[in-house]
Amino acid sequence: MVGERLLLLTFGESHGKCVGAVLDGCPAGLALTEGDIQSELDLRKPGQSIVTTQRREEDKVEIMSGVFNGRTTGAPIMMMIRNADKDSRSYEAINDTPRPGHADLVAKVKYGGFNDYRGGGRFSGRITASFVMGGAVAKKLLHQTLGVEIIAYSLEIGGIRAGRFTLDEAAKNRYSNETRAPTPEAAEEMKKKIIEMRGKGNSLGGVVECVATNVPLGLGEPVFGSLDSDLAMFALSIPAVKGVEFGSGFASTRLTGLENNDEYFFDGARVSTRTNNAGGILGGISNGMPIAYRVAFKPASSIASKQATVDLRSGKEVDLVVPGRHDPTVVPRAVPVVESATALVLADHALRAGMIPPVIGK
Amino acid sequence: MVGERLLLLTFGESHGKCVGAVLDGCPAGLALTEGDIQSELDLRKPGQSIVTTQRREEDKVEIMSGVFNGRTTGAPIMMMIRNADKDSRSYEAINDTPRPGHADLVAKVKYGGFNDYRGGGRFSGRITASFVMGGAVAKKLLHQTLGVEIIAYSLEIGGIRAGRFTLDEAAKNRYSNETRAPTPEAAEEMKKKIIEMRGKGNSLGGVVECVATNVPLGLGEPVFGSLDSDLAMFALSIPAVKGVEFGSGFASTRLTGLENNDEYFFDGARVSTRTNNAGGILGGISNGMPIAYRVAFKPASSIASKQATVDLRSGKEVDLVVPGRHDPTVVPRAVPVVESATALVLADHALRAGMIPPVIGK
Amino acid sequence: MVGERLLLLTFGESHGKCVGAVLDGCPAGLALTEGDIQSELDLRKPGQSIVTTQRREEDKVEIMSGVFNGRTTGAPIMMMIRNADKDSRSYEAINDTPRPGHADLVAKVKYGGFNDYRGGGRFSGRITASFVMGGAVAKKLLHQTLGVEIIAYSLEIGGIRAGRFTLDEAAKNRYSNETRAPTPEAAEEMKKKIIEMRGKGNSLGGVVECVATNVPLGLGEPVFGSLDSDLAMFALSIPAVKGVEFGSGFASTRLTGLENNDEYFFDGARVSTRTNNAGGILGGISNGMPIAYRVAFKPASSIASKQATVDLRSGKEVDLVVPGRHDPTVVPRAVPVVESATALVLADHALRAGMIPPVIGK
Amino acid sequence: MVGERLLLLTFGESHGKCVGAVLDGCPAGLALTEGDIQSELDLRKPGQSIVTTQRREEDKVEIMSGVFNGRTTGAPIMMMIRNADKDSRSYEAINDTPRPGHADLVAKVKYGGFNDYRGGGRFSGRITASFVMGGAVAKKLLHQTLGVEIIAYSLEIGGIRAGRFTLDEAAKNRYSNETRAPTPEAAEEMKKKIIEMRGKGNSLGGVVECVATNVPLGLGEPVFGSLDSDLAMFALSIPAVKGVEFGSGFASTRLTGLENNDEYFFDGARVSTRTNNAGGILGGISNGMPIAYRVAFKPASSIASKQATVDLRSGKEVDLVVPGRHDPTVVPRAVPVVESATALVLADHALRAGMIPPVIGK
Repeated sequence: MVGERLLLLTFGESHGKCVGAVLDGCPAGLALTEGDIQSELDLRKPGQSIVTTQRREEDKVEIMSGVFNGRTTGAPIMMMIRNADKDSRSYEAINDTPRPGHADLVAKVKYGGFNDYRGGGRFSGRITASFVMGGAVAKKLLHQTLGVEIIAYSLEIGGIRAGRFTLDEAAKNRYSNETRAPTPEAAEEMKKKIIEMRGKGNSLGGVVECVATNVPLGLGEPVFGSLDSDLAMFALSIPAVKGVEFGSGFASTRLTGLENNDEYFFDGARVSTRTNNAGGILGGISNGMPIAYRVAFKPASSIASKQATVDLRSGKEVDLVVPGRHDPTVVPRAVPVVESATALVLADHALRAGMIPPVIGK
Repeated sequence: MVGERLLLLTFGESHGKCVGAVLDGCPAGLALTEGDIQSELDLRKPGQSIVTTQRREEDKVEIMSGVFNGRTTGAPIMMMIRNADKDSRSYEAINDTPRPGHADLVAKVKYGGFNDYRGGGRFSGRITASFVMGGAVAKKLLHQTLGVEIIAYSLEIGGIRAGRFTLDEAAKNRYSNETRAPTPEAAEEMKKKIIEMRGKGNSLGGVVECVATNVPLGLGEPVFGSLDSDLAMFALSIPAVKGVEFGSGFASTRLTGLENNDEYFFDGARVSTRTNNAGGILGGISNGMPIAYRVAFKPASSIASKQATVDLRSGKEVDLVVPGRHDPTVVPRAVPVVESATALVLADHALRAGMIPPVIGK
Repeated sequence: MVGERLLLLTFGESHGKCVGAVLDGCPAGLALTEGDIQSELDLRKPGQSIVTTQRREEDKVEIMSGVFNGRTTGAPIMMMIRNADKDSRSYEAINDTPRPGHADLVAKVKYGGFNDYRGGGRFSGRITASFVMGGAVAKKLLHQTLGVEIIAYSLEIGGIRAGRFTLDEAAKNRYSNETRAPTPEAAEEMKKKIIEMRGKGNSLGGVVECVATNVPLGLGEPVFGSLDSDLAMFALSIPAVKGVEFGSGFASTRLTGLENNDEYFFDGARVSTRTNNAGGILGGISNGMPIAYRVAFKPASSIASKQATVDLRSGKEVDLVVPGRHDPTVVPRAVPVVESATALVLADHALRAGMIPPVIGK
Repeated sequence: MVGERLLLLTFGESHGKCVGAVLDGCPAGLALTEGDIQSELDLRKPGQSIVTTQRREEDKVEIMSGVFNGRTTGAPIMMMIRNADKDSRSYEAINDTPRPGHADLVAKVKYGGFNDYRGGGRFSGRITASFVMGGAVAKKLLHQTLGVEIIAYSLEIGGIRAGRFTLDEAAKNRYSNETRAPTPEAAEEMKKKIIEMRGKGNSLGGVVECVATNVPLGLGEPVFGSLDSDLAMFALSIPAVKGVEFGSGFASTRLTGLENNDEYFFDGARVSTRTNNAGGILGGISNGMPIAYRVAFKPASSIASKQATVDLRSGKEVDLVVPGRHDPTVVPRAVPVVESATALVLADHALRAGMIPPVIGK
């Protein structure tokens, strides 16, 4: 469970009956349909393009509670998608030969072998569909009440980094190409590289950048409960994420204070900064500039190449080729997930700061 | 407040009466003296060397509750240090001219001007003394019950990155040089660069790396409550931190799956990996390999150079030179803070996983 | 959401699609079937006897996640029952004339009219089915790991209080009579009184007593997090509950210290008390004696008699006869709910105290 | 720790260095002095009258953080009182002979003998001073922002129950007599009974009633987080409390629905009820009527009479006369404690409901 005023609890497994979420704390009165959620879910659906896995999943969301007459009621919103019947036999076969880079081994040991190991079970990337369910609501809530816009995109895949672009261009381009790149040029190159790597039975990582605009000054709390703490915490809940950085991030470590500090000026009546090395967060609190951060995704762990592992039953070292159809990179499908995580954290903090009322109007 | 079974709540301000912490959930029976905490606190104390601020603070810790006859009782442990009398006049003067890179402006707006702005108040780096108080207890607890060792050091300052070294060398070297570098060579170079930058009234950032060994497999929980989520959350609670990465981190985004996956082998009866690109965490759960992560610190915001800011009273743009004595870099003093944060998160998760009992023996 | 190590989150509304719960934190390895939950749910099902409402509900539980191969996996367990199609028209009619004793008015105001008012919506007693779902799991967990037995019964209904009985008699009798009384004599009298009151379009209250045996010494924490605090908190989450008392409870206020203190003696090697005025709890912590407490239920608010209320639309005072079929008393159906609440609190505290391991064996 | 938006964490032991609290979440801008807290603390101080213990304690509160220039800053407020040096020798002597009715035995077992047993340590009634510290702030906050008044009194002591009185009379009388009774007549009789019982080395229990007026409709949440749940939870955190009831409470179990339901009428434009059997709470949510509840205190456990107990060292049954000076009843000193608990719960819920803003004006 995550959140303080807007809580998200997720449930379900990759090959179980369903994957779902309960979102508790959403103000009453928000217009909400299954379509609002479905459209976001569709953005992370597999089987959509050559750059993602060819598995097809319906992923039809149902709102099971908390909405009445097309509006949120203030009660917990339960949403879920049913899993299609899946062939889980291949997972039985590899349950004793943990896949490198996956949670198979830790799950087996931690849960005494009782874990649902099929398709990664509770550790599957499929669980992020729950984030998107909750995130779709949070996004709508933030947009309607505060005008917040959240835009993520694949800044970099397999070492190919998008060149210069404006946020408007990124917003326009990211969902009109399969790699979710902010420019058509990067999209083209990334796609080529992904196809090449897929052909080799290997995989790629990358960086998702997320920018939130119109975020009011004052979200986040000093010490614990800071906005960057919570964004980082949520980002690292996404499978395959190995790092997160805000504003100038790791690059700031090589700048001087004079270079990195964002100087203040009056932008009309509003105090603003010309640079945004802070990524919109100072002292853990949003400063009114765009929130900007980057999330590092490791190359997808499931690959069609031979890898060394152990056979826990025989006690021997063996070679493993992970069966099934794999994402050659998780980055494109992670883009809506990072947006959702961002929306959930911002909405929670906006509620904590009293900037969204408990009932929102008609 | 942070933690689930081992809770840390901090209080106090930079120029108020005290800075302190309540640690709740520590098992009964741990031998604990003020000396155990003081020795850790002394490692972050200012005024110790040419590379840190020349302010001198006594920082004498008092344990006020939760310890009886030299042992923890299972009750909340309150610890605090009193602030020495400070000259706060300079802060009065700049209360209306927010320092770039600091939380002055967001604090003023968020708290309607009622915040204690002296020395950054609640947003001061001094607050991390509370982390060290709690961390000293967590560290001792982890060491005695599980044999966990936590070692952090300044991997990089001002772009100078330490060359090759073993963890043993880092452990030996870090506290025998002023920069907390893992090698004497790096220490020398870093020191030179810091002194040079101090002379220019400017500041440097850097990277602290932290490694925890003997961490049992199984700490952390899937989805929310993952070990890397909590480590990142805590790291970003440290002022000046702008990024965090685990194992191969951001670099992994440019590797392939084959390169980045850690293959398994039998190390005797124990399943191990030859590489540790995962940084000891898979699926959010410790896998028995060393936990290894890096924390990015921006260059210190307080600098003796002229910067542009706004005067909130006059509504004019003005130049500001931040008065007082500053750390030319916060990295060396942050080393024990990162260790403390790591210890608190690991101890909390070890308690959650039932690996540390509620009473630890004589 | 309730609980710290064993969390219960509920969702759903009386006339919505479903009512359900997510139980998070259950150890892996517990054998669990839908039958285990259904048998408990059936005990609170309406339409079973003349003393409860004649509405019939199927209430077939489905386990949607967290169980694999007949065992809990350690992941969140989502359980739900679908609501049958209901005629909600009568509720439309009375949405502007709040029913006395119900939450209609507070819900309407608090949620700006967006609440699902049909059948009480989120405030309906039907929500307690979620408690029973979670409670069934907790009960099985406690029984298998610690041998805890939890027995509740209708101590008193409509002023008729059961005479002397042993706990064994209560355990045997309660589910073999419709009123859940601990003795056949009380059952007979209570039933007569209930039928009489139903005939008058009126309702009755009563007292449920709950006793838990084999509870180990040490559950609960001093100050906040005490065992009685958590039991009381949960009991008051059950609709219609207006009081709770432990051991000699309110009666103790008229005893002297000498009369009320439970003196210690050695019962073999075990320290025991001859009396149990403490109700098994001292200083907020279980003392090894049976936990014994009583929960006061007000007379059911929905009655077929004429009552004065207001018409929020017309601004006039009007008479209201609540339409539909009502429970003449909620006490019998509340018995398994109180048991469930008890089980959830005790299991949470047993986990917190480290008395139930995170994986329970085959 | 207790609370969600306004958190209270307490620390300290009866015979340790101090007793204190951290209150986190108080809005910025509330005028607050040590005098505000001291005046409330003085109401629970021992040694004030013949009806309480003759021990004298200074109990001078210090605000250590969170207040600047006489106003709360929004940061955690740490408050504490230092314990005077105490003679703890008598406690050493009885550490192996647990006092009946006290937590001595459970504490010793739960904490493996490491607990601070002197004067009850963490389980002492002295810990409630922390509640009063936090409560004083909450009370002032509620009063200034919402006009809430909270009035508790000794409704009954030793079976002597106050006759008819108005709330105004109770407010006027309670602190002008030593028993905190709402009428002078009851005060007289109670005092006589207490003195008589003290003479016999015995003790009395009683009932504290608490009424809060001007509480807005809408505090509390459905299912978990209900207002009565939280009030009950907090009340049962007070040592010696064995029961709690709201409105008509246990008596309602013997009423019919028609008798107990509070019918609605228009009191001008406001919907009101003529009776208040609900105690101001319906469906777990405040309904705008006065919150009214009663708390049952058992007779004080420490008595000067001989009681049977066990000697844990020798394994023999022995007689015990608890040494020291005792409260013949805790009820009078508990009155401000119950008020504080009420204030803390109401303020937390008012913040959760967005009825108190994060910054309160000048």
